[in-house]
Amino acid sequence: MLRLRTSCRSRYLQLLRLSVPSPKFKADMAIIPVNKTAHPFDKTRFEALLNRRFFYAPAFEIYGGVAGLYDYGPPGSSLQANIIAEWRKHFIVEEHMLEIDSTIMTPAPVFETSGHVARFADWMVKDDQTGDVLRADHLVKGVLEARLVGDKEARGLAAQPQKEDEKKRKKKVVKTAGVQLSDDAVKEYEVILAQLDNYSGPEIGELCRKYDIRNPDTGNKVTEPQHSTSCQHPETAQGHFLNFSRLLEFNNGRVPFASAQIGRSFRNEISPRAGLLRVREFTMAEIEHYVDPEDKRHERFDEVSDIVLDLLDRDVQASGSTQVKKISVGDAVATGIIANETLGYFVARIHQFLVKIGIDPARLRFRQHMANEMAHYATDCWDAEIQNSYGWTECVGCADRAAYDLTVHSKKTGHPLVVRQALKEPIVTERLVAELNKKVLGKTFGKDAGAIQKVFLELDEPRLLEIQRELAQGSAIVATPDGRKLSLTPEIVTIERKTFKQSIREFTPNVIEPSFGLGRILYVLLEHNFWAREQDIERGVLSLPPIIAPTKVLIVPLSAKEEFDPLVQEVSSKLRKAGIFARVDDSNTSIGKRYARNDELGTPFGVTLDFASIQNRTMTLRERDTTGQLIGDIDQVISVLVDLVNDSADWVEACRRLPAYDGVQAVD
Amino acid sequence: MLRLRTSCRSRYLQLLRLSVPSPKFKADMAIIPVNKTAHPFDKTRFEALLNRRFFYAPAFEIYGGVAGLYDYGPPGSSLQANIIAEWRKHFIVEEHMLEIDSTIMTPAPVFETSGHVARFADWMVKDDQTGDVLRADHLVKGVLEARLVGDKEARGLAAQPQKEDEKKRKKKVVKTAGVQLSDDAVKEYEVILAQLDNYSGPEIGELCRKYDIRNPDTGNKVTEPQHSTSCQHPETAQGHFLNFSRLLEFNNGRVPFASAQIGRSFRNEISPRAGLLRVREFTMAEIEHYVDPEDKRHERFDEVSDIVLDLLDRDVQASGSTQVKKISVGDAVATGIIANETLGYFVARIHQFLVKIGIDPARLRFRQHMANEMAHYATDCWDAEIQNSYGWTECVGCADRAAYDLTVHSKKTGHPLVVRQALKEPIVTERLVAELNKKVLGKTFGKDAGAIQKVFLELDEPRLLEIQRELAQGSAIVATPDGRKLSLTPEIVTIERKTFKQSIREFTPNVIEPSFGLGRILYVLLEHNFWAREQDIERGVLSLPPIIAPTKVLIVPLSAKEEFDPLVQEVSSKLRKAGIFARVDDSNTSIGKRYARNDELGTPFGVTLDFASIQNRTMTLRERDTTGQLIGDIDQVISVLVDLVNDSADWVEACRRLPAYDGVQAVD
Repeated sequence: MLRLRTSCRSRYLQLLRLSVPSPKFKADMAIIPVNKTAHPFDKTRFEALLNRRFFYAPAFEIYGGVAGLYDYGPPGSSLQANIIAEWRKHFIVEEHMLEIDSTIMTPAPVFETSGHVARFADWMVKDDQTGDVLRADHLVKGVLEARLVGDKEARGLAAQPQKEDEKKRKKKVVKTAGVQLSDDAVKEYEVILAQLDNYSGPEIGELCRKYDIRNPDTGNKVTEPQHSTSCQHPETAQGHFLNFSRLLEFNNGRVPFASAQIGRSFRNEISPRAGLLRVREFTMAEIEHYVDPEDKRHERFDEVSDIVLDLLDRDVQASGSTQVKKISVGDAVATGIIANETLGYFVARIHQFLVKIGIDPARLRFRQHMANEMAHYATDCWDAEIQNSYGWTECVGCADRAAYDLTVHSKKTGHPLVVRQALKEPIVTERLVAELNKKVLGKTFGKDAGAIQKVFLELDEPRLLEIQRELAQGSAIVATPDGRKLSLTPEIVTIERKTFKQSIREFTPNVIEPSFGLGRILYVLLEHNFWAREQDIERGVLSLPPIIAPTKVLIVPLSAKEEFDPLVQEVSSKLRKAGIFARVDDSNTSIGKRYARNDELGTPFGVTLDFASIQNRTMTLRERDTTGQLIGDIDQVISVLVDLVNDSADWVEACRRLPAYDGVQAVD
Repeated sequence: MLRLRTSCRSRYLQLLRLSVPSPKFKADMAIIPVNKTAHPFDKTRFEALLNRRFFYAPAFEIYGGVAGLYDYGPPGSSLQANIIAEWRKHFIVEEHMLEIDSTIMTPAPVFETSGHVARFADWMVKDDQTGDVLRADHLVKGVLEARLVGDKEARGLAAQPQKEDEKKRKKKVVKTAGVQLSDDAVKEYEVILAQLDNYSGPEIGELCRKYDIRNPDTGNKVTEPQHSTSCQHPETAQGHFLNFSRLLEFNNGRVPFASAQIGRSFRNEISPRAGLLRVREFTMAEIEHYVDPEDKRHERFDEVSDIVLDLLDRDVQASGSTQVKKISVGDAVATGIIANETLGYFVARIHQFLVKIGIDPARLRFRQHMANEMAHYATDCWDAEIQNSYGWTECVGCADRAAYDLTVHSKKTGHPLVVRQALKEPIVTERLVAELNKKVLGKTFGKDAGAIQKVFLELDEPRLLEIQRELAQGSAIVATPDGRKLSLTPEIVTIERKTFKQSIREFTPNVIEPSFGLGRILYVLLEHNFWAREQDIERGVLSLPPIIAPTKVLIVPLSAKEEFDPLVQEVSSKLRKAGIFARVDDSNTSIGKRYARNDELGTPFGVTLDFASIQNRTMTLRERDTTGQLIGDIDQVISVLVDLVNDSADWVEACRRLPAYDGVQAVD
C-alpha cells in the first residue's frame, strides 16, 4: 500500500514551476495545481481576505478607528509570533546573542543625547480637551495661512485658488471667511510663516498664546509643544547602548558580541497610510553587534560569502539607475561595495532569514544609502527593500553606526562605555622625559617656575635631546613664552630616556545594527504568498511556509457528531504532544468549504476523519498548494506530518511515504 | 559501565527533602546537597546576585535611573521569554485560545467608556521644559501648602512642626521663606485645599494658571492636566473587548471561547518602590474567556476538580482572620465559595501553571476580593497571592467581569457586541394580540385615535380577554388616560390568540478574566528558588526548573585552547539541533568558578569537555542542585540531556542511565 505514486512528484514539480504539465496528467486536472504566477496579484481580493480572516484590522474600529494603528487578530498574531520565533532561532540562538528587554518609556534626555530630538522629532501639541495630537508647526502654518486667506476675502482680494486646492480652501473659508486683519498682523503672519522651520518648541508655544492659535477642528486651546518621543521610543536601540557596560561584563569583557531585542516602537506618523507599511506603533527586532573598530572581520563570514545578492549600490544610484548588481557577499566585501565583513555577514544573514520565512528572493534587493541620506549615526547602511504593490519598501536596515551612540552617551553621562582589552604583547615605547626639581625651580625662578613647567610640557623629542646635550655641558638655555631666556642647571632639570609599557588597550566599539520592521515584513510576506486557484478565483490561498504558518494542521471531522470526538481528541492530543499547533474545524459546512477557509488562513496541511477512520483507523492528509491527498494509518500520517512541519520532509517525500488518496477509501 | 549507582537516588531524595542523610553517605558529603530550607532567605545576597548577573537593573542607570522602570538583562529576558512560552503552551495551545496583539496607544474615549478614566486615572501635568510628570492635585497641594507655611513664617506665626516633618518643612522653607500672602489669598488657598478632590483636570489647570503654580523642583510652568492613560493602556483587556465581534466570527459564532494577549501595560505609579513588584511599565498576559451568562459550567472542569487550593474567602476575611481553607476546587464551587465552574476552572489552571514554573505551592494562596474592594466591573474575583519578602503579593487576578465591558462599549458605540445563537428548539409562545383598524379608528375618533392606540399597548392579558368577550357581544368600553370612556366595535378592534416562534437567542456574554503580572511572577519565582550552599554561602544558587531556566546547559571546556574547539562545536551544534539552548563558557577561570557562576544564573545542567573527552569521547554531566556528576559517551549524555530538559526524565532517571563520575575518568 505504501508504493510511491509517481503523480505526486510531478504535481509537486509543477507547483515549483519546474515543469509544464505533461499530457498524461490532463485527466487528473482536479488535483493538478494552477500555476500561481498565472494570476496577477489582485489587491482588492487580497485585502478582503486579510480583513475577512482577521489577519489584522484597524484598531478601535468600533470607535471609528485611529489612522496608523492596527490590531492583529488570531492569524496575524500567530504569524507574527512564528516570525519572531524563527528570528530568535536564526539570530539569537544561532549567534549566541544576549537578549534584553528594556522599557518603552524613555526620558527625554536620552533622546536629546542620541540626537533623536534635535534631528528626528517634531514638536507636538495636544488639544487640551480631546487630547488629539497635532504637529505644532503644521498647526501654526494651517491657522495663520487660513487667516490670511480670510483676510484677503474680507478685503475682496481673494486670489483664484488652484482647482485641486478648492476643497481644502472651502473648508478654510468656512472657518475664517470675512475676518479682516490689521496690516501689521498680515505682515507679522507672513514673517512667521517664512521662517517657521527655525522656531523651537517653546517659541511655537509662545506663538500659539500670542496669536490665540487653537485646534481648528474643535476650537480648543492646545498644550505647550512637547517632543512626544519623551514618552515612547522610536527604536529599541537606546536600551541596548545604555546597558552596554553590563552586557559587556555579562560577556566576560570580550568583543565581538551582540545584544538583541524585540519590542514595540512608536513614530509620529502625521498622515499614516499604506496599511501596515506606515504605522504609529509597530514591533521591531533589533540587533546591536559590538565590534573592534580596527578589526571588522567576522569569524563565520566564510559560511555566507557565496550567497549571491541583488545589490543597488551608491554609485549606481548616483548615476540615476536602479539596475541591481548580482554579486556574492564575498565579492561585494572584497571589492569594497560593502564596507566590511561584519556588515556583509549580516546583510547575507538577513537575506537568508527573509527567504526562509517566505519572501520571494526575486523581489528582494539591498539598497545602499546615499551619503547625504544616511542617518546621523551611520557610516555605511544597506536597506533590505522588498517589492510589493506599494513599490519597493524598506523592511530591514543594516547600518554600521560606528562609535556614535556609545560615544555620545558616555560623554553626556561621564560613564565610560568602552572595552578594555589585555594586550597579548604589551606595547613597549621609549621616550625622553624631563623631570623638574620643583623645590629648586621655585627657589631659583619664583613666579616664573610655572611658566617653565608649561614650556617643558610642549617640547618635542629633538628639542629635549638638544637640552639634554646642553645640560651635560653644564647648563641649558630655555625661552619663556614672553621671550625671556632662562638658564637651567642639571640640579633643576634632568632629561632621561624612559621605557613605557602599555598592557591594556581601551576603545569604544563600533556597532553594526540590523534592524527589522516586523509589521512591514509580515505584510509583504502575505502579498508574496497570496494567489487564487483558477477554479475558485474568489477565494484566495496563502502559501505560507509551514514554519511560520499560523496553524500547521487543520483537523476536519466529517461532522460535529459525537462519534468522531474520540478520534478528534486522539489526533489533537498526539499533534500537541509533538509540539504541532493544530486546530479542529467541526463547523457545520462541507469539508471543501472548510479547506477553502483554511487555504485563506495559510494552513499548510489538513487531515480528514470520516467513517472509514472509525472503521479502519485511516486518515487522509491534504496539502494546501497542490490540494493533493494521501492516506494512511493515523499514526503513520501523524509521523509524516511531524516531519513536514519541522521541515525534515517535503511533500515529495510525503508522497513517497504514503499512497495517494483518490477519493475512495482503501480497504486492506 | 551503565550500572545504577544507588547513591544518586538517595542524593536526589535528600534534595527533595524527603529523607534525612543516612550515616553511610556521610563520607560522600562533598556531593550531598545542603538542605535548601536550612538557610533563611538572605535578601541582601539575593539582590546582589540579581544585580551582579544582570537579571534586571534600573532602566537608564547611567543617566541616574528612573524610579519604577527596569530593564531585563540576558538572564531576566530569557527567563521572561521562557515563562511566556510556557504560558502560551499551558493556556493558549491547551485551550485553543485566540491570540491577538492590539496596540498600546489607546484613545481617551475608550477609557472613558471602560470606566478607567473616571475611576482609576489621575490627572497629570508635565514640566513644560523637562517633561517630568507630576500628579496635578499633589502639585497644587504641595505648592499651596508650602506658600501657607511661608506666609506663617513671614508673619512670625510658624507653628512648631512635628519632629518627623522637620526635614520636609526645611525644604519648603528654603523655597518659600518670608513671602507673606494677602489675607484674601490665605482664605482662597485654604478653600482650595479643603476641596481639592472635587476639581476636574481643566479646573486644576485653571488653578495652576491663576496662582502661577509651577514645578517646585525646576521653577518651570506645567502643561494642561491630562489623563496619561489617553496615551498608554493600563491593561490589555480593552483590545480584546473592542475586537469581540471579529473574534466571535473567527470562532464561527460560538461561545464559550477565549482570547489571549501578552503585552506591555503602564500605570501611574507616583512613588514606585518594592522593585519589580511596583513598576510603571510591565508585561501582562491576559485571557478573556467569553461564556454564556446562563451557563457558566466548563467542559474540562472534571480534569481539575480534585486540585486542592489554599483559599482565603470573603467570609473568613470579614471575620478578621487570614486562615486559609484547604479545599478542592470541586468542593469550593459546589459549596458556592467560588461563584461558578468556569471561574473555578481558571483558578485551578492558574495554580497548576504557577507550580509548574517553580512557585512554592506552600506560599501560594487565592484570596477572594471583598465586596467593596472589587473593581467596578467584577462580580467575583480571586487573586493568586504569593508570599515573598515583601509580604503576600497579588500576582494573578481572576475575575468574573460579567457583561460589564461589552455592554458599555456597545452602548457607547452603537455596535452590538452580542452572541446570536440558533435555538435547538425554537421557543413557541402564544399570547392575545389586539389589532386596530387604523383607518376606521381615525375616522371614528379623530385626534383620540392615538390615545386609544397607546392604551392598547399597555393592556395585560386578563383585560384583553375581557375586551375580547365584550366585543363578541357587540362592543367594548375602553377608558382613555383622561378618564373618558369610549365604545369600540369589532370593526375597529379585533383580539386574537397568536403563536410566536423565537429561533434565535441574543445575549451579551459574560467574561471570566485571568490576568497575569509577569514581572511580579518572575520576581517571586526568583525569591522562591534562591538559596546558598553551606560551603559557599557568599554565592547563591537559583534552582529554576529546567523548562524556564534561561540557559539549559552550560558547556565547559577545560580551557579556551583550540584543541577543544571541535568538540565544543559538535556538542553545541547537537544541542542546538535538539532545540536546547546551551552556552559555552570558555573564560579563563577554574571549572568550579564557572559552574558557581552558572548556579547563580540558574543553569540546571553542565557538561565538561577535557582531555579525556578528546581521547575517549566521554563527557561529564553535572546537575546544579545536587552538584552530582555522571559520565558517559558524548552522544549518550546528549540524549539524557534532551530528556532532562524536556521534562521526560528526572535526575533519578539520569542516574539510572549514566554511571556516577567520581572525579577519575573511566577508561574502557
